Amino acid sequence: MARGRATLKDVAERVGVHLSTVSRVLNAKPGYVVSEEVAEKIRTAARELGYKTNPFAYSLRVNRSFTIGVLIPDLTNPVFPPIIRGIERTLAKKGYIAILADSDNDPAEEERILERLKARQTDGLILATAHRADELVADCLEEGYRVVLINRSVEAAGVSSITNDDHFGIAQAVRHLASLGHRQIAHVAGPQAISTGYQRYLAFREAMQAEGLAVDDNLIAFCDAFAEKEGRRAMAQILARSRPLSAVVAANDLLALGCYDAIEAAGRRCPEEISVTGYNDMPFADKFKPPLTTVHIPLFEMGIEAAEAMLALLDTENPEPRQVRLRPELVVRGSTARAPAGI
Amino acid sequence: MARGRATLKDVAERVGVHLSTVSRVLNAKPGYVVSEEVAEKIRTAARELGYKTNPFAYSLRVNRSFTIGVLIPDLTNPVFPPIIRGIERTLAKKGYIAILADSDNDPAEEERILERLKARQTDGLILATAHRADELVADCLEEGYRVVLINRSVEAAGVSSITNDDHFGIAQAVRHLASLGHRQIAHVAGPQAISTGYQRYLAFREAMQAEGLAVDDNLIAFCDAFAEKEGRRAMAQILARSRPLSAVVAANDLLALGCYDAIEAAGRRCPEEISVTGYNDMPFADKFKPPLTTVHIPLFEMGIEAAEAMLALLDTENPEPRQVRLRPELVVRGSTARAPAGI
Repeated sequence: MARGRATLKDVAERVGVHLSTVSRVLNAKPGYVVSEEVAEKIRTAARELGYKTNPFAYSLRVNRSFTIGVLIPDLTNPVFPPIIRGIERTLAKKGYIAILADSDNDPAEEERILERLKARQTDGLILATAHRADELVADCLEEGYRVVLINRSVEAAGVSSITNDDHFGIAQAVRHLASLGHRQIAHVAGPQAISTGYQRYLAFREAMQAEGLAVDDNLIAFCDAFAEKEGRRAMAQILARSRPLSAVVAANDLLALGCYDAIEAAGRRCPEEISVTGYNDMPFADKFKPPLTTVHIPLFEMGIEAAEAMLALLDTENPEPRQVRLRPELVVRGSTARAPAGI
Repeated sequence: MARGRATLKDVAERVGVHLSTVSRVLNAKPGYVVSEEVAEKIRTAARELGYKTNPFAYSLRVNRSFTIGVLIPDLTNPVFPPIIRGIERTLAKKGYIAILADSDNDPAEEERILERLKARQTDGLILATAHRADELVADCLEEGYRVVLINRSVEAAGVSSITNDDHFGIAQAVRHLASLGHRQIAHVAGPQAISTGYQRYLAFREAMQAEGLAVDDNLIAFCDAFAEKEGRRAMAQILARSRPLSAVVAANDLLALGCYDAIEAAGRRCPEEISVTGYNDMPFADKFKPPLTTVHIPLFEMGIEAAEAMLALLDTENPEPRQVRLRPELVVRGSTARAPAGI
């Protein structure tokens, strides 16, 4: 911290007014009348003396920290940086700052981080870590915190959330594969305790039926986390069952990358023998070998929406939860091809 | 912020001691003696009443915010999340929190963000945005801020920094290409106002000479930013000059991805016709088409080192700058191959 800064008192002495007048002008207190001439003198003196508001004293007085805690399950998943950028830009416009924390998919770490964020008296929490039945979220709400969920939602009603339409997105992926002649389609499912994993799994079953295709439970495997190594493990499990298959719908892009690994390790080729679809359209999905066919969700916009929902919650004493569901869109690239003959 | 929390006064009344005693125990003030029995009663009462230290009042008293500003040039560059994770983990152990901000390679935005971080009275600044002659860094130091530079350094002496040995890394890449028979090697250079761009360019020239290869200035092009589209532009510029070449050393991985694009757009093939090397070994570099041969730098460890350097600076009144240079390592993958015959 810089030393020897000018104080309110220095400004008051320079202008020749009372300390409280200076405080009211520089801290922009509402409902206090001072002539524009005096106000301008005070602002000029403050600038010349290099006075800066003491944020601790200001926070203590208004009982706000002007910080929002943002809890992310895995910062190294490239979907999160664009979301965070959207959140930060939007909060900054209103003088709020994001305090980012990364739980590395560890529920115990999530709890520790939330305690730290609460101890800092963050004014609100934007959580990308929610589970379907999430006690941590319920606790935060009960304690009076403003909460916005992003990407993942909870089953309890009344929480603000910014999500995408998982059913619509998965239906697009399944329809695309069906149109390429695929009939034996596998699903590498996400964690079922998380809304995105669960909804995409349900959506996969529904979409297969809608296309008149049979769901073979031997072609489904579940992952414990949205991580590449889990995708590899699950896809290897499906391949080891030796059922005919020509395509796999992965519940997100990192799982799809794991499918690439397992397909290659089994000596099969993508897309010639097995087509793969992902979900999220994370940065660099177009650079992979092969470029990934996936469901695009508007990551930066989701960040903006989450920050706006938070600012709306902070503006009112009895806030109405805002639930926004954005529409995703299939992006066809090189990981999907016509089903091979004879399968 | 949660409402209706217990105050110090509530705790004092419950235990039947003076307010100042409670304050001294709960805020762990040094040099004050209170019996362990009383201290334990106070801690128990605080826990039962749900009292939490008011961080604003505490910060006001000790004149520390326990926050460290971390300024990143481009959060969507996958090299930064592992660095940030290393910083956060290390700071958290000492009760500090990182406030992350992302300038999107915009110097004006950097300046605005630094003003915001200073206004928040962050206790120190970890900067990944430095330019070789950086007035913003000089200003921060002059104003008494603790500063640690990460990845990029400045030319002025006396600033703590955590970097890697750019000369060693580039020499490895050039030696690898030379050993594969490449003689006409291009360089897609980073911004020359940034230490990594400048040092890697100098290192390229030196390494070529060390291998007994001629440097052809027609095979060098400079980028304005470490961004994929700049790499594409620079590589297209080199290819348009129609000089023979069989390899390109890109100054980082995003520039190398841009080279992939330009090579493909020109109807050439990597690595069969043109080998490409990157720098950083960013996450997913092994997944690209083709998997990228690049210089690995220990990103997570750099984050840890930067946070430790910052904590050391905060511990002392007249800190000695700490300058750490980590050794990088070449990782050979699919983007480099033997030089084609006849070139």
